[in-house]
Amino acid sequence: MSGQIKYLLDERDIPTHWYNIVADLPERPPRPLNPRTHQPMSAAEMTSLSATELLRQDGSTERFIAIPDQVRDVYRRFRPSPLYRARNLERELGTPARIYYKYEGFSPTGSHKVNTAVPQVFYNAGQGIRKLTTETGAGQWGTALAFACAQFDVDCEVFWVGASYDQKPYRKTMMEAFGATVHRSPTTRTDVGRKARATEPPGSEPLGSIGLAVSEAVEVALADPGTGYALGSTAGHTLLHQTVIGEEALKQFALAEDYPDVLISCVGGGSSMGGLAFPFLREKLTGNRDVRAIAVEPTACPAMTRGKYAWDYGDMEGLTPLMKMYTVGHRFVPAAIHAGGLRYHGVSPLVSYAVHQGLIEPVAKSQTDCFAAGLLFARTEGIMPAPEATHGLAACIDEAIRCRETGSDEALLVLVTGHAHFDLAAYASFQAGQITDEELSEEQLEVFLSQLPVVSPH
Amino acid sequence: MSGQIKYLLDERDIPTHWYNIVADLPERPPRPLNPRTHQPMSAAEMTSLSATELLRQDGSTERFIAIPDQVRDVYRRFRPSPLYRARNLERELGTPARIYYKYEGFSPTGSHKVNTAVPQVFYNAGQGIRKLTTETGAGQWGTALAFACAQFDVDCEVFWVGASYDQKPYRKTMMEAFGATVHRSPTTRTDVGRKARATEPPGSEPLGSIGLAVSEAVEVALADPGTGYALGSTAGHTLLHQTVIGEEALKQFALAEDYPDVLISCVGGGSSMGGLAFPFLREKLTGNRDVRAIAVEPTACPAMTRGKYAWDYGDMEGLTPLMKMYTVGHRFVPAAIHAGGLRYHGVSPLVSYAVHQGLIEPVAKSQTDCFAAGLLFARTEGIMPAPEATHGLAACIDEAIRCRETGSDEALLVLVTGHAHFDLAAYASFQAGQITDEELSEEQLEVFLSQLPVVSPH
Repeated sequence: MSGQIKYLLDERDIPTHWYNIVADLPERPPRPLNPRTHQPMSAAEMTSLSATELLRQDGSTERFIAIPDQVRDVYRRFRPSPLYRARNLERELGTPARIYYKYEGFSPTGSHKVNTAVPQVFYNAGQGIRKLTTETGAGQWGTALAFACAQFDVDCEVFWVGASYDQKPYRKTMMEAFGATVHRSPTTRTDVGRKARATEPPGSEPLGSIGLAVSEAVEVALADPGTGYALGSTAGHTLLHQTVIGEEALKQFALAEDYPDVLISCVGGGSSMGGLAFPFLREKLTGNRDVRAIAVEPTACPAMTRGKYAWDYGDMEGLTPLMKMYTVGHRFVPAAIHAGGLRYHGVSPLVSYAVHQGLIEPVAKSQTDCFAAGLLFARTEGIMPAPEATHGLAACIDEAIRCRETGSDEALLVLVTGHAHFDLAAYASFQAGQITDEELSEEQLEVFLSQLPVVSPH
Repeated sequence: MSGQIKYLLDERDIPTHWYNIVADLPERPPRPLNPRTHQPMSAAEMTSLSATELLRQDGSTERFIAIPDQVRDVYRRFRPSPLYRARNLERELGTPARIYYKYEGFSPTGSHKVNTAVPQVFYNAGQGIRKLTTETGAGQWGTALAFACAQFDVDCEVFWVGASYDQKPYRKTMMEAFGATVHRSPTTRTDVGRKARATEPPGSEPLGSIGLAVSEAVEVALADPGTGYALGSTAGHTLLHQTVIGEEALKQFALAEDYPDVLISCVGGGSSMGGLAFPFLREKLTGNRDVRAIAVEPTACPAMTRGKYAWDYGDMEGLTPLMKMYTVGHRFVPAAIHAGGLRYHGVSPLVSYAVHQGLIEPVAKSQTDCFAAGLLFARTEGIMPAPEATHGLAACIDEAIRCRETGSDEALLVLVTGHAHFDLAAYASFQAGQITDEELSEEQLEVFLSQLPVVSPH
């Protein structure tokens, strides 16, 4: 082993501003529509759910938005996150590519989700919200919101997609340690939950979906003015807050005296992708440095690679505003793959727009390819990556192999969004040969795409 | 929140040398004896088990021992570890004390154990050893050795104490991801394992103990010249390697322009305690700065607070050399407390000697007090501490409360040896009120102490 493998920054290098890519896009991406009138949502219509400042950020065209000191104070516990050079993995692959990974697993809850949980709770607390509800897929977001709520003394209620809840009992312990109340979704606590349960055979526990859990969390928040709703991904502000990842990486590449040719991250809602890529895309859009960006989704939930760029709801019941995005349809319930954070029917409007504009290339990877990539990464680099993060790694390995075959000495930057410490049952199943890939058929896909809302242009 | 909370160091600040406290002690602590002859062990007698350089380090009186570049290269993945100021915890306790914690949970395997696993594998590989065996209690050490073996391409076979193996199935997944073979101890693979199993009722799986698992690992290593044995704690070299913790903390306190009045860590075998305290005790022994050091053991395994300072074996079967140490007797099988890493009958001869000399103060804490301390720490500081680490935290909270009651503004430094990501089942049991404390009776203790070997002075 030789040469530097870790690029650390000082607390002083924690970004002072988030970056808003909207300021640099050639045109403004489509804004959300009211789900009933199909007219653009007014700020007044949206305040029932989200904090005013978050809505302002969603609508902002400012290039940079200042990070409040109280948020940076909490960021200081775990930021800047390290950038590593994966020399062992490079050697194992025999690639001339330089592989770098930015690792978000050292956050208090083990993933990048805390980056947006902290400001969301801060702004809500600042306007008197005493409780936040949310959904969670893999459990990463629920844990992050629980941590952030504990930091600002706000109550937290989490609706956790049943399929993942059953796989990871101990994330519940952690959320509860931070003071949160955790439900398996669908619950009997909400109208939408009871409705979903009524369609199941008696005695069985429905697997749930992120879309359904969103509906539950939104219903509870709408019922009480002191309760707000927090969203872990897809919304503009979640991507905005995650840009601390890309901003730090830019500084770290300057330290390394290098620059990435290719950026890679997984996409569930799209916040890790946006957070990593947007600061680098700024450099591209403003003519400074070119870069390729690759967004990796699971073949089990192929919104970008097989879905449509269309208006759709964020939740299963159609309670949220309509968004223009890549989607497989809001009624789609993905197979219970272990990357629970990627089991979402749509992709953030901002990431979708960037894909539609050709700024980001989508690819899909199968679950088994991803676990194999995760194990190779664990053995060589000593980090067990979260099932979500293995999607980025699988695509990164493909790129590294392409570089080997073409003799190209590119620099690859992959985001490892979190660790797998609560997902080892999934790895155990994979090691035991119990994980197989299910292909989504054209027929199945067509059924869900046919349920997209018909939105008249205005 | 205000004021700095994290003290980071650069890769350049990773220590270049380990510190050997033997050089600064007023006299040389008693050396190990041959278990049959009761004469001091010669180097030749010991080479069948450990790498030559490790034995040389155990016998060395040099003050500083250089860390090989190849070891520092692996350290660079996770060192220096951060020092945090626990401002939220201070506020919660209303204490004038300044509480600092050094956090080892960011290592690849989530605890400080990697600090000694890496050099042990490096030295063994350098002399042609192709496989290492070991025991593990909580699973931390086995995972650390598995990681280190993967870095130097050495096979790894782990004997895991049954009680902990059953509690933490997923650490096995992680060890296997790093390429190790993992057994539940006692096994049917060794003579001592079969003997232990024979005393149990048919069909039941014995809980095992660290002492018994040591016997198994040693038996396998002795049977093959290409196989070595690695020890996660108690041996002099394990404490030596852990001094990177204390050396870094000294530099970090200089950055913080502060100095600890009290050092606190848990004690299983004693390596985290030695690693944290010895560099500070050097400053004390050489007349630079005074410091108190507190060693915290579980009430379920009270070697320092209720045991004897006596000659005893390191394993249950009496295969290891005799060591002068605090012990509750090598045949003692502690209750199946969740801090599996602290279920060991003895304490490192070096730490024992320091306790005997009054350089380190021992205290014992009950399991329920420790879990309560762990949950308070999780809620305030956002880190779920390993059950072992909660012992240090419980004693640290006692000290902070003493400071509140006496109005003393001391600086406390507690070592958080690792995270609890594989121990959340234990926290779940505690939250559900299912964990109680069992007191070890005087009668039980006397039985085990009466089985100490009779060693004639020479």
